[in-house]
Amino acid sequence: MRKIATATAPANIAFVKYMGRKDDVLRLPDNGSISMNLSGIFSTTTVEFLPSLSQDDILIDGEGRVNEIARVVAHLDRVRELASFSDRAKVVSANNFSIGTGLSSSSSGFAALTVAACAAAGLKSSQKQLSILARQGSGSACRSIPDGFVEWLDGSSNDTSYASSIFPPDYWDIVDVVAMVSTERKEIGSSQAHERVRSGPYYVSRIARMPAKIRQCKEILAAKDFTAFGQFLEEEALDLHALFMSAGIVYLTPESLRLIRLVPIIRKRGIEAYFTLNTGQDVHMFCRSRDAVELKPVLESLGWVRKVVVNTPAKGASLIAEHLF
Amino acid sequence: MRKIATATAPANIAFVKYMGRKDDVLRLPDNGSISMNLSGIFSTTTVEFLPSLSQDDILIDGEGRVNEIARVVAHLDRVRELASFSDRAKVVSANNFSIGTGLSSSSSGFAALTVAACAAAGLKSSQKQLSILARQGSGSACRSIPDGFVEWLDGSSNDTSYASSIFPPDYWDIVDVVAMVSTERKEIGSSQAHERVRSGPYYVSRIARMPAKIRQCKEILAAKDFTAFGQFLEEEALDLHALFMSAGIVYLTPESLRLIRLVPIIRKRGIEAYFTLNTGQDVHMFCRSRDAVELKPVLESLGWVRKVVVNTPAKGASLIAEHLF
Repeated sequence: MRKIATATAPANIAFVKYMGRKDDVLRLPDNGSISMNLSGIFSTTTVEFLPSLSQDDILIDGEGRVNEIARVVAHLDRVRELASFSDRAKVVSANNFSIGTGLSSSSSGFAALTVAACAAAGLKSSQKQLSILARQGSGSACRSIPDGFVEWLDGSSNDTSYASSIFPPDYWDIVDVVAMVSTERKEIGSSQAHERVRSGPYYVSRIARMPAKIRQCKEILAAKDFTAFGQFLEEEALDLHALFMSAGIVYLTPESLRLIRLVPIIRKRGIEAYFTLNTGQDVHMFCRSRDAVELKPVLESLGWVRKVVVNTPAKGASLIAEHLF
Repeated sequence: MRKIATATAPANIAFVKYMGRKDDVLRLPDNGSISMNLSGIFSTTTVEFLPSLSQDDILIDGEGRVNEIARVVAHLDRVRELASFSDRAKVVSANNFSIGTGLSSSSSGFAALTVAACAAAGLKSSQKQLSILARQGSGSACRSIPDGFVEWLDGSSNDTSYASSIFPPDYWDIVDVVAMVSTERKEIGSSQAHERVRSGPYYVSRIARMPAKIRQCKEILAAKDFTAFGQFLEEEALDLHALFMSAGIVYLTPESLRLIRLVPIIRKRGIEAYFTLNTGQDVHMFCRSRDAVELKPVLESLGWVRKVVVNTPAKGASLIAEHLF
């Protein structure tokens, strides 16, 4: 039974990062990762398969974005193959933030697309199946499917690499305060970075340490040790950007560094905050939720910070509307 | 025969960096390095051994700098041991730049101190002996002893780790335009960095690649291939700072990143310039000497750049005055 379906999905921020993959087509990562879904950064996507269309009609944030369209079409093809039909789709997707700046737009975008497209195609998919499918669109999108705090298993095949929830959203009262510093698109996309780091000199050493990092992160989460968590976050963020720099890629901007260097000063002023970074320039600061009221205006008072978003741990992708037709 | 002696020595900038050492007391590095002496950043030091003094009297830039004094006294002790006497010294040293900011003040400082103290002690030292001695005061100081373009051999003992000239100052018509962005002292001194990177996860991989880097750098210098040289410089600079970040150290400041990100823009405007970095925040830009006239005012026009110094390849440390008494 085909429908028009609308889904929403959060972006996620990794505590243990995903960078480098053993299979570029299936997007199988070289290491597992752990993340948290973000309540304030999300994509909302509507999909409708229509026999009358001669090609997929894709609108992202009101525009036909040429760069993204081929990837979206390829993803719709995966759904069509599962559903055994060939109708083209009308896709309307909206992000509540700027895409391509390192805010993990492809994670929320492909998670929402996956859920909406599967529902529109009349597929009854399990969460695991949705995560596996989302991963093929954009690796980290598989982490935006389950709720709250999430682990993505590296896996060695399509069926064994998916994400599942390790703790629900209300498990821990922490927030991710994202300071957005620019809407400029990053020069080197994540996919290119995944390739370049693999041939960089730091890669082998990093990959060897990842299983221990995953274990350590899960122990810290289980113990809800915020200080250990914060130190772990910062170390892993710098480790990721060391990996980029060793491959000649600099994602950090002057503004990222201004924020990073502000964090210890904020801590000295009594707000226990720690930073982490994505494959991009924006700085994520974690604090306990009670401290966010104080941290947010501090960041907003900086003239060069464009926007501050406070994120609580969020549930994963979900269908918000479906209509039979 | 004892004298009062004054020496001057240049700071140097490494093309292949020195970071991490196998012996902290002798300051034996884990890898060899290659550098160029800088004509515009130097220390001038006068030493006089006086039987009347009860302790060494040390003045650096007009101040008795408590932090540096123990290291200077230890270095004078090395000279006294070689000269077999125990007179205390009066030392007056002046830098034409701010120390402790990553401009390699200890390289020029200890090279000048070594040459002046040895002359004042009446020692007849070869260049190799001076380089070995300078190394024990500050590793990179050994590279400020010989002329021009210099290679420091890692060596496995005190006598085998020293620097020598591979090309004279007039070998290649290139300049290092240093944009100084702050006079703030760096939070983590080089000595501490040498220790921390060694236990960091990137160290083993980096060290394994260093002999090949040394070979590659020498080939590029021999060929005078400026474009290859520039690309090599940038790659090695990012590799060094990846090493720092992997050990949790961020030397780069927002201003460093502004400059780094300016370099490709400058190149697009027709000035072929490349950056390198030291263990600190200042950005060194290499270009052909004919392009410096154009590059310097570009950097000077940036309100947040404190000072711009154009350096040609310089000769090493030298005695500029000595008087018998």
